[in-house]
Amino acid sequence: METLLLNPAAVEESAQVPAVVDAVEAAFAAYARGDAQMPAKSYIDLPQYDGDFRSMPAYLAADDWDGAGIKWVNSHPNNPEDHGLPTVMGTMIYSDPETAVPLAIIDGTTLTRKRTGAAAAVATDHLAVPDATSLGLVGAGVQAHAQLDAIATVRDIETVVVADKDPDAVADFRGDAGDAFDVREGSIADAVGCDVVSTTTPVREPIVPREAVGDHTHINAMGADAEGKHELEDEVLLDAKLVIDDHAQCTHSGEINVPYAAGTLDDDDVHAELGAVVIGEASGRTDDDGITVFDSTGLAIQDVASAHVVYEYARDHDVGESMELVGTDD
Amino acid sequence: METLLLNPAAVEESAQVPAVVDAVEAAFAAYARGDAQMPAKSYIDLPQYDGDFRSMPAYLAADDWDGAGIKWVNSHPNNPEDHGLPTVMGTMIYSDPETAVPLAIIDGTTLTRKRTGAAAAVATDHLAVPDATSLGLVGAGVQAHAQLDAIATVRDIETVVVADKDPDAVADFRGDAGDAFDVREGSIADAVGCDVVSTTTPVREPIVPREAVGDHTHINAMGADAEGKHELEDEVLLDAKLVIDDHAQCTHSGEINVPYAAGTLDDDDVHAELGAVVIGEASGRTDDDGITVFDSTGLAIQDVASAHVVYEYARDHDVGESMELVGTDD
Repeated sequence: METLLLNPAAVEESAQVPAVVDAVEAAFAAYARGDAQMPAKSYIDLPQYDGDFRSMPAYLAADDWDGAGIKWVNSHPNNPEDHGLPTVMGTMIYSDPETAVPLAIIDGTTLTRKRTGAAAAVATDHLAVPDATSLGLVGAGVQAHAQLDAIATVRDIETVVVADKDPDAVADFRGDAGDAFDVREGSIADAVGCDVVSTTTPVREPIVPREAVGDHTHINAMGADAEGKHELEDEVLLDAKLVIDDHAQCTHSGEINVPYAAGTLDDDDVHAELGAVVIGEASGRTDDDGITVFDSTGLAIQDVASAHVVYEYARDHDVGESMELVGTDD
Repeated sequence: METLLLNPAAVEESAQVPAVVDAVEAAFAAYARGDAQMPAKSYIDLPQYDGDFRSMPAYLAADDWDGAGIKWVNSHPNNPEDHGLPTVMGTMIYSDPETAVPLAIIDGTTLTRKRTGAAAAVATDHLAVPDATSLGLVGAGVQAHAQLDAIATVRDIETVVVADKDPDAVADFRGDAGDAFDVREGSIADAVGCDVVSTTTPVREPIVPREAVGDHTHINAMGADAEGKHELEDEVLLDAKLVIDDHAQCTHSGEINVPYAAGTLDDDDVHAELGAVVIGEASGRTDDDGITVFDSTGLAIQDVASAHVVYEYARDHDVGESMELVGTDD
């Protein structure tokens, strides 16, 4: 019984973006149809290390495949300064639901980056104007690349406007992005006037002002991942058709958590969960819509869906190493 | 950032039994002192495959080390017949709590076997008569070996009486056990007259009759791991000093779950959790005690403690393979 071991390079190679976007869309659909199981994230809090661990198990059944797995992921904000390590690392065990064989152990850091980009692409596909050609990126870190890669599979992006308080980050982004797009540096106001916007910053005071947002802009609000974080002024959320990935997670730690806790925004202001939009139970963009917002916190089903794609590709293309990791004689 | 990959042979080599028993004892102590975190197991039920997955995350701080990790484990009872695979398989991610680096990916099947034996040894050390020399084993499967290996580190076991409905299993056990002990085949009544007994069967109707149990016998009831399972007649439990590993898990799926649900046995019949005994908050065996019983369901802290031993040994003795599994550039 072989288990595939997929490190960052193997995940990068195997996480074919269009396939990951399709699988993540199928995962949201399965979740909305009730064909997924996703126990609540459980936390281990380690204040002595200013860190925590999170367990994210899930199962989902798409039309023609199913998958199960768990991602074990942490947040240790002092890691970069104290240890030269990332704040967040992840390790994913991907299993065959029928036999429980652990098919692959997957670098969860790279996988998270891919599945997060894919969720934005799914939301963009259902909520952005069909003829969107410009993408604004607020924040120029690694997730900005994942956003561009994934969103470009669902809209014909030509122009990318990148805003970051660090000019070096913008320069690096432009260098890495190559010539496939017209990548420009801009202000936040420039970026959020684009047809599609992805915000990927960890701020606690909103940096996206209502008046700068384009009349038909779709915003993927990706940055907020903890209580107290939000990137968009409340008025952006209140004026938008607002779609969330998961009610429990978004109200707890997503873009809407601060105004939700304050009572500025309530359930009546939320249009739907993304899965309901994907299966047509709730509307995507209509001609009457102006601003749309997707609040993404990241779901365990996205990890399982992405792991499915990565595992199948790696197996079929001999990517990664393989070993007899788990005993079968018990 | 290297992660050790420890397959069954590597775990077998690295899980030095006395060290695992010590670490598991320290884990029970930490749990009792409040120096452990163990979120409730979460389940993914897959009735379509007659199986489930369980997530078992934990952190614990012993006096001179701490550790964190998660075991992802399944129960697929049809696996042996349908797929030639074990009913239960496990995969463990063992992490540095300070940095969250995944130090090792460990075969959880072998690890579970070792940590389960270790829990029985800890209980035996605190609850069996000090001069115990005979061990009765009800059930002669792989866990019976683990029981003997671990219990022999805390008592000078000379005689082992093995009872199993399958004579081949007994013969195999005797062959594997070698010459270190006087291993005899016996009836269940023979076995449960020994000084120490471990029951490791999956039965749903008790097979250990009250009248056969020795006056000062300590029984490790290891087999029950799901609602409806129990190995000991209710009278054994009611007449014993009864120690459990964890109240929530034992009342749900341990040896006591059936009489507890029926109201035949209640919290007043439970002496203490094992951790309380280990730290002296509750008594172990006293001269006044007759039968003692330990109800073991298996705790995530046992896995973390055993993983700690396995990882440290493997690292120090170059056991296992190593790879850059998880990305550090994010």
